[in-house]
Amino acid sequence: MKILLVGASGIIGRAVATELGARHDIITAARTSGDIQIDVTDINSIRSAYAKAGRVDAVVSTLGKVHFGDFAEMDDTKYRIGIDDKLMGQVNLVLVGRDYVADPASFTLTTGILSKDPIRYGSSASMVNGALESFARAAAIEMKPGQRINVVSPGVILEAMEGYGPYFRGHDPVPAARAALGYAKSVEGLQTGQVFEIF
Amino acid sequence: MKILLVGASGIIGRAVATELGARHDIITAARTSGDIQIDVTDINSIRSAYAKAGRVDAVVSTLGKVHFGDFAEMDDTKYRIGIDDKLMGQVNLVLVGRDYVADPASFTLTTGILSKDPIRYGSSASMVNGALESFARAAAIEMKPGQRINVVSPGVILEAMEGYGPYFRGHDPVPAARAALGYAKSVEGLQTGQVFEIF
Repeated sequence: MKILLVGASGIIGRAVATELGARHDIITAARTSGDIQIDVTDINSIRSAYAKAGRVDAVVSTLGKVHFGDFAEMDDTKYRIGIDDKLMGQVNLVLVGRDYVADPASFTLTTGILSKDPIRYGSSASMVNGALESFARAAAIEMKPGQRINVVSPGVILEAMEGYGPYFRGHDPVPAARAALGYAKSVEGLQTGQVFEIF
Repeated sequence: MKILLVGASGIIGRAVATELGARHDIITAARTSGDIQIDVTDINSIRSAYAKAGRVDAVVSTLGKVHFGDFAEMDDTKYRIGIDDKLMGQVNLVLVGRDYVADPASFTLTTGILSKDPIRYGSSASMVNGALESFARAAAIEMKPGQRINVVSPGVILEAMEGYGPYFRGHDPVPAARAALGYAKSVEGLQTGQVFEIF
């Protein structure tokens, strides 16, 4: 398979590249590195990235910026960061991509444990993750035949614990290589409309 | 209790006014009717509505516009309708309202069954409902002491079946008066961070 991996420079992205790269051709995309540069908050940049990638059999997104901050200081503008990037950035990867991908093809997006198991400072991440999980369930039943969509929801990533640890006390860290298995299940399996929880 | 009911002109809003109005003082707010006019997509309009309402013990929102449409024709602009209105309109009612309400006070927002049980044309509603449910779970644990937040998620409303019926085949319609019980549980009980599913 030819797989477009968007967000390839992150900890999860690199683990997915290792997991799927063992069996497939990976085209890496990221904001400033990789085979293709992409800004997912810009529809034209998404179109351009797909045009450069050519027809791919799977799109995997491991991107997603949200604002972490004290709920008392959260406002509309801060929630919009996650809405524009992690939520609509990934949704637009699907909306634009569906006209560029091969037939059949799959889309695999990334959420995270905070949709169900919230932490201090995480209300924007929770919001966006919940939105993406319900979106994927709904989009899956309306997509054109041959197209699939799933979400991988990892717990806090072991390799990110140095920075995230203080905010995720009591969470059982997930090695990035184990989170990457969720993407393999989505890409190489046949399920659609699923949230693969890796935590 | 003094309760600000936003979205009071809708089918659910009227049923909530009947249920809670039997025991409490209801201040109704809606876009063009009610005691106070409010446009929840405009922060200044939200501030103005709270200033007019005075200190309330509970805020209940039964509003929420989303675009229903064929997934094949959904684009960023169409998803933004629900993001701006049902999602961020309700979130901003909380963010702005937390500085105006009495102590203690509760916020009760409205989602719907589509977060879990999608239908054709409903991908925007699913997205927004999922976002709100995860937001409420997260906001609840970070809110200042004395403030609570819950979500009521009704199934398709019986009184709306004439219009919605064709899209909700197989769904068991919920009388608006039964959906209204979820708001009473949220406002008059003590739970927080909950999604009260009425379906």
